[in-house]
Amino acid sequence: MSTICETTLRVRYAETDQMAVVYHSNYIIWFEVGRVELLRQLGFSYLEMEQDGLNLPVVEVKCRYRHPARYDDEIVIRTRLSQMRTSLLGFHYELLRKADGRLLAEGESVHLVVGRDMKRTHLTGKYLAAFHAAAEVAQLATHAEAQAATQAETKS
Amino acid sequence: MSTICETTLRVRYAETDQMAVVYHSNYIIWFEVGRVELLRQLGFSYLEMEQDGLNLPVVEVKCRYRHPARYDDEIVIRTRLSQMRTSLLGFHYELLRKADGRLLAEGESVHLVVGRDMKRTHLTGKYLAAFHAAAEVAQLATHAEAQAATQAETKS
Amino acid sequence: MSTICETTLRVRYAETDQMAVVYHSNYIIWFEVGRVELLRQLGFSYLEMEQDGLNLPVVEVKCRYRHPARYDDEIVIRTRLSQMRTSLLGFHYELLRKADGRLLAEGESVHLVVGRDMKRTHLTGKYLAAFHAAAEVAQLATHAEAQAATQAETKS
Amino acid sequence: MSTICETTLRVRYAETDQMAVVYHSNYIIWFEVGRVELLRQLGFSYLEMEQDGLNLPVVEVKCRYRHPARYDDEIVIRTRLSQMRTSLLGFHYELLRKADGRLLAEGESVHLVVGRDMKRTHLTGKYLAAFHAAAEVAQLATHAEAQAATQAETKS
Repeated sequence: MSTICETTLRVRYAETDQMAVVYHSNYIIWFEVGRVELLRQLGFSYLEMEQDGLNLPVVEVKCRYRHPARYDDEIVIRTRLSQMRTSLLGFHYELLRKADGRLLAEGESVHLVVGRDMKRTHLTGKYLAAFHAAAEVAQLATHAEAQAATQAETKS
Repeated sequence: MSTICETTLRVRYAETDQMAVVYHSNYIIWFEVGRVELLRQLGFSYLEMEQDGLNLPVVEVKCRYRHPARYDDEIVIRTRLSQMRTSLLGFHYELLRKADGRLLAEGESVHLVVGRDMKRTHLTGKYLAAFHAAAEVAQLATHAEAQAATQAETKS
Repeated sequence: MSTICETTLRVRYAETDQMAVVYHSNYIIWFEVGRVELLRQLGFSYLEMEQDGLNLPVVEVKCRYRHPARYDDEIVIRTRLSQMRTSLLGFHYELLRKADGRLLAEGESVHLVVGRDMKRTHLTGKYLAAFHAAAEVAQLATHAEAQAATQAETKS
Repeated sequence: MSTICETTLRVRYAETDQMAVVYHSNYIIWFEVGRVELLRQLGFSYLEMEQDGLNLPVVEVKCRYRHPARYDDEIVIRTRLSQMRTSLLGFHYELLRKADGRLLAEGESVHLVVGRDMKRTHLTGKYLAAFHAAAEVAQLATHAEAQAATQAETKS
C-alpha cells in the first residue's frame, strides 16, 4: 500500500482573483480533493463513511503558500495521513505544479471522528483497519502511543 | 408593505477573478442574499421555513451581465417576487453599484416549493399569507389565474 | 471534428449545501470547466486566448435544474458551441450524472469577444478559424447570416 | 485608535455544506472580510493600497474550528494586527456567533508586502504610519525588534 496519494486537478478561472493567482482559500478546498482521493485509495469513499454514520469535521487547518498557482495550471495534490489517534486524524498535503514539479504550497488538516450526533466517536471495522494500516506504513506513532497521547489529551 | 427589498453587500476579494471583475457565478449567490432578505422583510426567515419543513430549491436561474462589479464595490440588490403559483415562486433581481446607481446585472430565479421529502408541496399558513400579500402588492397574476396556469403546466 | 466536448468532474464536498445537494451556483462554474475543455478540443486554451489579448466575458447565463447533483457524484459536462456572431459566442451545456446518464441540468452562456481594453473586438486568425469550423460542423447560422444578425444588433 | 476591528456578516446558504454547517474554507474568506475592514478603520482601503502598487499576498494561514457556524447565523469577526515587520504583516481573527458571543473559530494570516512586480517591498507613507500606529497600540514588538527579526529571517 502506498502511503501517499497523488491526484491532479486543473485550476478553474473561478478560482483566480484579481492578483491573477489562485485565491488562497481555494487551496483548502483542494486539500479536501486530495484527502477524499486518499480515502478512496485506502479502499472506501468518504461518502460511504458518512452513510455509515462517521463524519470527519475539520478542527484545524493550516497552509503555507510558497509560489502562486495560476489559471489553467495542472496541480498535483500529494496527500498522506500524518496523525492518527483514537478519534482524531491528521492529513498532510503538498501542492505541486505539474509542469515543473515546483512546490506551490503545503499544509495540514486535523479532523475529529464524530458520529451522526456530531459527538466524538471511534473508528471501527474496515475504517479503523484501513487507517491503521496506513498509519503503520507511514510509520506514525503506534496505537499504544496514540492511546497514551489521547488519554493525556482527554485529561487536559 | 413594500414589494421590493433592498440589501447592500460589499464585493469580496475572493469574488474577483483575473479579469479584475467579479466572477459571474457570484452574482447568483448574491441573488440568494437578496431573496433571503426579501423573505425576512415578509416577516420570516428562510431558516424558519426550512425548520417548518418547506424548502425552495432552484429550478431555473438566469442572469444578464451589463457592467462588471469590481472589488470593494458596494452592491445594492433589489429583489421582488415575480411569480407565484401553487408550488412555484419566482424572484427578480437587480444588482446596482451603490456609488452611482448603475445597473450592473439583472436576473431571475424560479423555485419549487417542496417538503422535507423533496416532493412538491403547497405553501401554507403564514408563508402562504405573506407571499400572497406580496403577490397582490406586486400585482402578480391572481390566485385563480395562478391555479389555471399551474394546472396547464401540470398537464404538459 | 466533434462538435461536442465531454468532460468529467467529481462533486466536491465544498460544493454541497445543507439541503445535501450541490448548491446551484456551482453548476455555472462547471459550465466554465466544460467551455474551457471545448476550446482545448478546438486546438487552443483559453489561457492562450487571454495572452493573445482576447477575453470572453459572460453577458448572459441561464441554467435549468432537473435533478440534484450530489456529493461524490461524477458529472459529465457536454458542451457545444450554440451561437457564433462577429463578436459574440454562445455555448450550450448538459450536465449528466455519469452513473446512470441522467440529465441533471442544462444551460447556456453567452459571451462577448473583447480585447485587453474590454471593448468589443473580433475573433481573428486561428481562433476565428477554429470557432468557424466548429460552427459549421454544428450547423449554426452561416457567416453571412451571422453578419446580418450582428449588423441588426449593432443598429439597435 | 482601537486595535480591534469588529465586523458582522450573515452566513449564506451557499456557504453551508451537507453536514449543515459552514464549509471550513469559508472562514478563510471571512478572515479577508475582517482584515479589509480593519484596514478601513486604519484610514484606507485595500483597494487604495493596490492602486498605490502595494499588495499583501497571503503566505500562511491557519484556523482552529471550535464550534460550527450555521446558516443564517450572524458572525462577528474580530480582527487585529498581530505581527509587523519590514515587509510582513500578521493578522489575528476571532469569529464569534453574535447571538450568544460564543467563539466559533480563531486563526491567523501572514502576508508579504509586495509591489506590482510581486517582489518584496516596504510599506511607505500613510500605510507605514497607520500600521505602525496600530502596532504600537497593540504593543507589538517595536520597530527595532522587528528589524532585527527581519534581518535574522532574511539570513536563514
